[in-house]
Amino acid sequence: MLTVAAGEASGFTYEQWSMVYNALSFGIAAMGSATIFFWLMIQNVAKPFKPALAITGIVTFIATYHYFRIFNSWVDAFGVTYDAKDEIFAVTSSGQPFNDAYRYVDWLLTVPLLLIELILVMQLSAEETSSKAWTLGISSALMVALGYPGEVQDDPQGRWLWWAAAMVPFFYVVYELVVGLAAATDAQSPRVASIISSARYLTAFSWLTYPFVYMIKGVGLEGAMATALEQVGYSLADVVAKAVFGVLIWRIAHEKTLAMEDELAGYASNAQSATKLKGLLANAH
Amino acid sequence: MLTVAAGEASGFTYEQWSMVYNALSFGIAAMGSATIFFWLMIQNVAKPFKPALAITGIVTFIATYHYFRIFNSWVDAFGVTYDAKDEIFAVTSSGQPFNDAYRYVDWLLTVPLLLIELILVMQLSAEETSSKAWTLGISSALMVALGYPGEVQDDPQGRWLWWAAAMVPFFYVVYELVVGLAAATDAQSPRVASIISSARYLTAFSWLTYPFVYMIKGVGLEGAMATALEQVGYSLADVVAKAVFGVLIWRIAHEKTLAMEDELAGYASNAQSATKLKGLLANAH
Repeated sequence: MLTVAAGEASGFTYEQWSMVYNALSFGIAAMGSATIFFWLMIQNVAKPFKPALAITGIVTFIATYHYFRIFNSWVDAFGVTYDAKDEIFAVTSSGQPFNDAYRYVDWLLTVPLLLIELILVMQLSAEETSSKAWTLGISSALMVALGYPGEVQDDPQGRWLWWAAAMVPFFYVVYELVVGLAAATDAQSPRVASIISSARYLTAFSWLTYPFVYMIKGVGLEGAMATALEQVGYSLADVVAKAVFGVLIWRIAHEKTLAMEDELAGYASNAQSATKLKGLLANAH
Repeated sequence: MLTVAAGEASGFTYEQWSMVYNALSFGIAAMGSATIFFWLMIQNVAKPFKPALAITGIVTFIATYHYFRIFNSWVDAFGVTYDAKDEIFAVTSSGQPFNDAYRYVDWLLTVPLLLIELILVMQLSAEETSSKAWTLGISSALMVALGYPGEVQDDPQGRWLWWAAAMVPFFYVVYELVVGLAAATDAQSPRVASIISSARYLTAFSWLTYPFVYMIKGVGLEGAMATALEQVGYSLADVVAKAVFGVLIWRIAHEKTLAMEDELAGYASNAQSATKLKGLLANAH
């Protein structure tokens, strides 16, 4: 952590400081607007998918809250003053700390939830839904919890140690996404299967950026530039892993709703099989 | 960027400063009210158009957020004091920077989205929707990203260089709007085709204002007046490209909803063609 007395040079150039400021504002706008979109779309999908869309919006809503907090913490930790001699803006320390923990509190809540929204939209059997939700939820929470002690220390050795510990549940979750859910994905209709595959690989891919961003400070990069890159990197990875991922979840729910309506309309013309019709109606929205 | 020490004359007359202040407030009012209208109208259009109207509102919502931020940044960067000697208001610098980056962060999110809302409302085939959304979305994001490095420098040569780079994807998008979507537009009903054409040409036309506003500082105009014209120009172009464009998107959705309801009512009186009824029911809201 960069800590200097109030009024002293922070080590950040105005450009570095602005880069983080704008990335955090981008996070607020992207997460906030994604939240509204997912919640507006709840009315537009069939009943079985409404919980998944509600949770998708909860994930980006929690992120919106934390991006407001991180943005305010970033602004409060520094002061921008005009340096008339050099004709540039200088970034001084305000003497207040920048709170890094917000990200970890956010991930502890949102990462298990976004794995659960993927499981819900896949419509596995009740037993499988429950067991996957528990194992993926707990492993991903453990991953976040193990990452935090390394994040808050400057000692590269300590960072590597906790990084390695967090990578164990991380690889388990990525393995489950890529291999464990493959059979269940193939059981879906071709259009839906292809979007679910995109969602699984987008998650695996966007998650892989986190360990790299985390280790920016473990490979010798220090000080202001490392912190700026870390903040921008986490912000972009978060928008992909939560908002872009959520759009894929919505598209899966949307395609499945269309397929259900097609089937329902088929029954309307020759209403024979009462049992099947009943099941379809129960799912109609 | 115009930067002077806190308390010194900013270079802006009170009239120039007010012109920007009022244009930014106009942006907040226009974008905010457009957002509410689009979201209220979601319940009033048939199901296939609800996502397009939700996204239309998301675009103006993101713009509302950024116009609030730009307005506050504009107010915080200056101080207005009464000059008793000359009996005028003088605009001094507060020593805080005016953050220009908000516009680019906004465009990075909203420009791909407003192209996607046009594609969604056109109801192309699933493959064409997906391929157009990707190519237009990525080219337009690239256009915004290439424009930014030129915007933040005062050197006219550098501005022209990045301007030219951004114009490559710009022309591709305009070409796609004018030529690429022509065949798909003609396939629509005459009333709908004419509104879609308006939306395509309004986008192409309103977008053409941006490169001119951008180059105000590249043609030798400098200082306060150039900045004031740039801010007012961008604000007006934004309201046309997002809020007025959104009204056209809503009118397309509205006309298509009426056509669907007419057709549905026709089937109710002589319910014959089960297959066609099936398609209509799937789309009913």
